Amino acid sequence: MHKIGIIDLGSNTTRLIVMAYEYGRCFQLKDEVSEVVRLAEGVGDSRTLRADPIRRAVEALSMFERFCKNTGVEQIIAVGTSAIREAKNQEEFWSALRRVSTLDLQIISAEEEARLGYLGTINALAIRDGFVFDTGGGSTQVCAVRDRRLLRSFSVQAGVLRFTERYVKSDPINKNDLRRLREGAQQAFAHLDWVRGGNGLQLAGMGGTVRTLARMDQKQRDYPLDRIHGYVLTRNALNTLIEQMALRNRREREALPGLKADRADVTLAGAVIIDQLMEQGNFHEILVSGQGVREGIFYQHFLAAHDPPYLENQRAFSIHSLACLHDYEPVHCAKVAEISLSLFDQLAPLHLYGAWERELLGYAAKIHDIGVQVGYYDHHKHSAYLVFNATLLGFSHREIVILASLVRNHRKGQADLDEYAQILASDDEIRIARLSALLRLAEYLERSKSQVVRSVEVRIQADTIQIVVHTTGDATVEIWDATRRAGLMKKAFGRNIEIIAAPML
Amino acid sequence: MHKIGIIDLGSNTTRLIVMAYEYGRCFQLKDEVSEVVRLAEGVGDSRTLRADPIRRAVEALSMFERFCKNTGVEQIIAVGTSAIREAKNQEEFWSALRRVSTLDLQIISAEEEARLGYLGTINALAIRDGFVFDTGGGSTQVCAVRDRRLLRSFSVQAGVLRFTERYVKSDPINKNDLRRLREGAQQAFAHLDWVRGGNGLQLAGMGGTVRTLARMDQKQRDYPLDRIHGYVLTRNALNTLIEQMALRNRREREALPGLKADRADVTLAGAVIIDQLMEQGNFHEILVSGQGVREGIFYQHFLAAHDPPYLENQRAFSIHSLACLHDYEPVHCAKVAEISLSLFDQLAPLHLYGAWERELLGYAAKIHDIGVQVGYYDHHKHSAYLVFNATLLGFSHREIVILASLVRNHRKGQADLDEYAQILASDDEIRIARLSALLRLAEYLERSKSQVVRSVEVRIQADTIQIVVHTTGDATVEIWDATRRAGLMKKAFGRNIEIIAAPML
Repeated sequence: MHKIGIIDLGSNTTRLIVMAYEYGRCFQLKDEVSEVVRLAEGVGDSRTLRADPIRRAVEALSMFERFCKNTGVEQIIAVGTSAIREAKNQEEFWSALRRVSTLDLQIISAEEEARLGYLGTINALAIRDGFVFDTGGGSTQVCAVRDRRLLRSFSVQAGVLRFTERYVKSDPINKNDLRRLREGAQQAFAHLDWVRGGNGLQLAGMGGTVRTLARMDQKQRDYPLDRIHGYVLTRNALNTLIEQMALRNRREREALPGLKADRADVTLAGAVIIDQLMEQGNFHEILVSGQGVREGIFYQHFLAAHDPPYLENQRAFSIHSLACLHDYEPVHCAKVAEISLSLFDQLAPLHLYGAWERELLGYAAKIHDIGVQVGYYDHHKHSAYLVFNATLLGFSHREIVILASLVRNHRKGQADLDEYAQILASDDEIRIARLSALLRLAEYLERSKSQVVRSVEVRIQADTIQIVVHTTGDATVEIWDATRRAGLMKKAFGRNIEIIAAPML
Repeated sequence: MHKIGIIDLGSNTTRLIVMAYEYGRCFQLKDEVSEVVRLAEGVGDSRTLRADPIRRAVEALSMFERFCKNTGVEQIIAVGTSAIREAKNQEEFWSALRRVSTLDLQIISAEEEARLGYLGTINALAIRDGFVFDTGGGSTQVCAVRDRRLLRSFSVQAGVLRFTERYVKSDPINKNDLRRLREGAQQAFAHLDWVRGGNGLQLAGMGGTVRTLARMDQKQRDYPLDRIHGYVLTRNALNTLIEQMALRNRREREALPGLKADRADVTLAGAVIIDQLMEQGNFHEILVSGQGVREGIFYQHFLAAHDPPYLENQRAFSIHSLACLHDYEPVHCAKVAEISLSLFDQLAPLHLYGAWERELLGYAAKIHDIGVQVGYYDHHKHSAYLVFNATLLGFSHREIVILASLVRNHRKGQADLDEYAQILASDDEIRIARLSALLRLAEYLERSKSQVVRSVEVRIQADTIQIVVHTTGDATVEIWDATRRAGLMKKAFGRNIEIIAAPML
């Protein structure tokens, strides 16, 4: 695999991510090093970087450079954003950097930063039409997206540090400060009359503030997934969090689950900014993105052959990437997919499911065995663990629970779904049971991993589902095992299952 | 990686395992297919295999052959044991097999079977001097091991099927039957006066019966690990299980957690046989092996260059194998090991730990990052998950919990140890905290993965531990991060931690 390092020098933090990848096939985050260098510290209105912050930033960048050199990184892309962009004394920074480093740091414009954030989000979330925002320290970027393309972007001078400094003078915040904070945010977005929800337009959010708010909301709900990316934060939940933070002083806020100490000062202002964006745009929920500018830079590189650089089918791609990373067996998995989808299609009169379920079943077939890399025994459970912890692009949390449950059930037993009740729909239990049953049957008909089954023919009868299995050779054991393992299918479809061998001449 | 298929045709089950491996470096179980063909069904005293069982066995073997051919297996080793060995009409079996398969099935002697079982166990468990037994359907094999070498082996005509048929005529078993079963087992082992515990001699057990008993015992204790291999089954626990099974009829026995339906008939006899072996040999506990004949065949192949074919240092080997399977970074991990072991050695006056803790710390350093293959975020938790689910050779369960906790703690947070209370010793919490603190410090001193730290020098003072870090270049960030992350060390050693950079000239 290739390795690329991406460095992002921000106002507060500078970060390095290292991605391992094969062009167009798969990628994986291999390292992340994050240093809080506070480059913008003490800049104020003078727009002058101070000596200590410059020294800290240069030390971190030099360390990142060493890191990359020593871990086989072939290429580094480094960008600097607002703090360095807006500094009057850039030359001091450059001369300090050049003394210790040969790093080619590019200063990017606010528009380019917004575009890269959009690119990170558009590849990672199922957003087709809507808006993507990024709440930073000094400003909030808003991008309009139509048919996944970037239509336009805009920067609003409402940032969490800026607004905290300007409006939050009391602790806990008093009514007057809160009112002024809210008015400030309202005014900042007042001119954005083109940012409007409705007509299926979605709102996606990235950045530390929205991630923090999502984590806080998850903690309060005892959310069963440890995953921020793809989480849906409702405006109601956001308002509950604003209330809780507004009533507490700093020490009490730090005790709120999910709110880290270094965010305890600024998250209230961030939440109010986001709330006003939602108010004025008439949005009821935010789809939270765990990816942003750095990932955008990565996609631009990884998808250099695409214009614009986004994945045509992010879901299929990320399943393929996951399968490749865990060394899947393509021929076996393709046959399991083929058989289970054929069963799915022929059983449509009974289950009435559509393209969505079919898509998920196909994905589950592709990655059902990835857990073998953890350990053969209980590999179905390990496959589910890997799904729950993988970077998956464009899937909702509900879809991730369904996918994980399907791979969990592909051999034996059944996933316990109780803990996922707040994520799943009420009919998902039977949906998962039925799709799992098809996957399991296909798996046992491919028991010998020899593609001995040419095709399956389903005959739906009053009490029985007959499955005629056309084989190209001896499939005695496959038929026998599939028959023994048909219990879940019998239960899920409420009919007897009869499996009949039909060797082809 | 190479792939080898190993097939074992037994009296009840025939199994295929597929191992992927690189000679002497690493291996991993990739597939296991198990078919209950009941080859010995209806054999009785005539020692004649019947037509249906022969057909089923041949079908399974032929399927295994196809399986291997289609999954890139380069070589197959296939063995047949007692059922085929003792059959009068072997030729019928051979001609049926040869009609559909070119498989080169070797019939192995009882001695060879015992030796292969010994080989599987000696490589997988920390047994140096003692006895290894394998309770089968017709007989029990006992091997004496001295300095890990096979001294002698013996076959006793006490098997679970044989004894169930002969003695268990009532359900629940009545007192008379139970007494006769016990006497039968007693007599079977009466001549084994050379099988004796004491003087540190250990008893290891393999086979389905002992695994079933271990699982039952674990279920009753709410055992926190899902791992049979390396479990210690005490004679007291065994006697509790015998009582429970003796009081219940078949249906009630099937409700006992851990006792599968197909074992509900024969496990009582098996337990009584094992109990008598323990009684006469004066053993108080059994170290349970999850590996046996098939793995023995694998080791013989994998370690062809070794004579006898066992791993000199099974623990170090299996940690190395695990690290390789998950694509570890050798240079970085070696430096983390070096620094953490140097800290360990210099802090000996404070912790008073010895070679055992040092060994575990070194292993943890080697595999601390393997979880990155699952996902970068929370990779410390994924590393622990991989340790808990890996094939590790020669480790006790307590050691596995310690190892998993060390890798879990290497970045931040601390593993919750409460659920492992029944496995850990009372001072393991502080032991884990201290070793984790050293690992974490070493990890942050290797933050840039650039081996910038040449050595560390520890100065133990009344209230403070001073750590002088000799570096070969700029290590500002490493020192800074290590200082920030020294909280666990401060807590675990009860002193302030001071980290001082000392660049080398």
